[in-house]
Amino acid sequence: MNPRSAPERLLSVLAAFDHEHTALTLTDISRRAGLTLTTAHRLVGALTLWGALERDPSGTYHVGLRLWEIAALSPRGLALRQIALPYLEDLYEATHENVQLAVRDGCDVVYTEWLSGHSSVGVHIRVGARWPLHATGVGLVLLAHAAPAFQDTYCTGPLTSFTPHTLTDPSSLRRLLADIRHTGIAVSDRQITDDALSVAAPVRGPGGEVVAAVSVVVPQQGAQVGVLTPAVRVAARGISRALGWRPAGRGEA
Amino acid sequence: MNPRSAPERLLSVLAAFDHEHTALTLTDISRRAGLTLTTAHRLVGALTLWGALERDPSGTYHVGLRLWEIAALSPRGLALRQIALPYLEDLYEATHENVQLAVRDGCDVVYTEWLSGHSSVGVHIRVGARWPLHATGVGLVLLAHAAPAFQDTYCTGPLTSFTPHTLTDPSSLRRLLADIRHTGIAVSDRQITDDALSVAAPVRGPGGEVVAAVSVVVPQQGAQVGVLTPAVRVAARGISRALGWRPAGRGEA
Repeated sequence: MNPRSAPERLLSVLAAFDHEHTALTLTDISRRAGLTLTTAHRLVGALTLWGALERDPSGTYHVGLRLWEIAALSPRGLALRQIALPYLEDLYEATHENVQLAVRDGCDVVYTEWLSGHSSVGVHIRVGARWPLHATGVGLVLLAHAAPAFQDTYCTGPLTSFTPHTLTDPSSLRRLLADIRHTGIAVSDRQITDDALSVAAPVRGPGGEVVAAVSVVVPQQGAQVGVLTPAVRVAARGISRALGWRPAGRGEA
Repeated sequence: MNPRSAPERLLSVLAAFDHEHTALTLTDISRRAGLTLTTAHRLVGALTLWGALERDPSGTYHVGLRLWEIAALSPRGLALRQIALPYLEDLYEATHENVQLAVRDGCDVVYTEWLSGHSSVGVHIRVGARWPLHATGVGLVLLAHAAPAFQDTYCTGPLTSFTPHTLTDPSSLRRLLADIRHTGIAVSDRQITDDALSVAAPVRGPGGEVVAAVSVVVPQQGAQVGVLTPAVRVAARGISRALGWRPAGRGEA
């Protein structure tokens, strides 16, 4: 029934879990992973014994604490977020708006931190959520600083539209990316929902390479981009410094 | 060479990574996981293809973003922490001290969140760190509310001593646990280092069961336990309410 390798089968059990499926029965897992019940039973048993899965008294399984402990070692996940958190908190204190940290994974932006503000915009993003690069402020920053060949491929590929404001024209997108590299700030205006605007800036690693992006999402109506921009920029530079980046030309620490 | 099952071998590759070993070469992994280089190569390849590991340009491997995304679904890891974070931030704002969230895993307490305060105590705990239950405030809270049979076994087992103040006498520990259940607060005084004190309170789930603990760690000298106690208690109750817990006997929401 199953031409996949042993590692692929085991990983397919983990991949059966997602945001809409955080608790699964053995039957759910077997169906979602495309495994026989016997194989699923054996693999779930091994994963539970190790701690990657946990079984609750009702017999359903969820992702276990041990997997979380290992994942906490991911440099781009919790490790980056741990360094960034004080600066994200400062940005939240200064704006009281939704604050995000995100990294690029292929053609997606993945949110690795999300502090919720008091103003409610129609964007409900959770930690671990993915969006296409061109539709979000953080994604535009990360795309603008990706390798030129990658940018070319991305810009010519199909660009999903979420609202009438989503940028789907390749040449407009290319001009915007050049502008983002020049100004150091990306503004995404109602690209995912009709009511939200985000302001994003790049986070740099020790060598100056862009490793992440930080942003604030606010209601589009009444958004004060000129006020948010310096705050986002300062937070992004603070995280970059904490990662070992030093700005060129000023000689300061 | 290897009597372990296929799932065990794959998981041993993940287990090769820990806080002191976040970046490993293929040779490191093969040695730490007890696998031949050929087997390690095959398993690391499968894990990298899937995204559980990532390879950097220098050829070393680290834990990948995809594992972090799956681990973010762990109810006791990121999911709990996401619900708790606003209350932990409030506690930090109110005290400007180190604030922690922790859960129990067997005989250990595992820290799932840690906000750093400005005061420096000699305790440097990272997210994902483990300590024995009896030596920390959060651990004492979690032990005090564990099943009675588990408490008995724990109290009679060897109790590791970290300082002259660490509680290692079974009957003193039992009395302290009863006291913690009665007052709803645990104070751990210089049990891990000579200069730190922590104040901890239980976090309850919808059914009233203790699912986590929240604490503040401060320098022992000058610690104002009476001032910290209500703040920690309010934060713990706030997280409990957010998890669906309702206090008995008052009828309020």
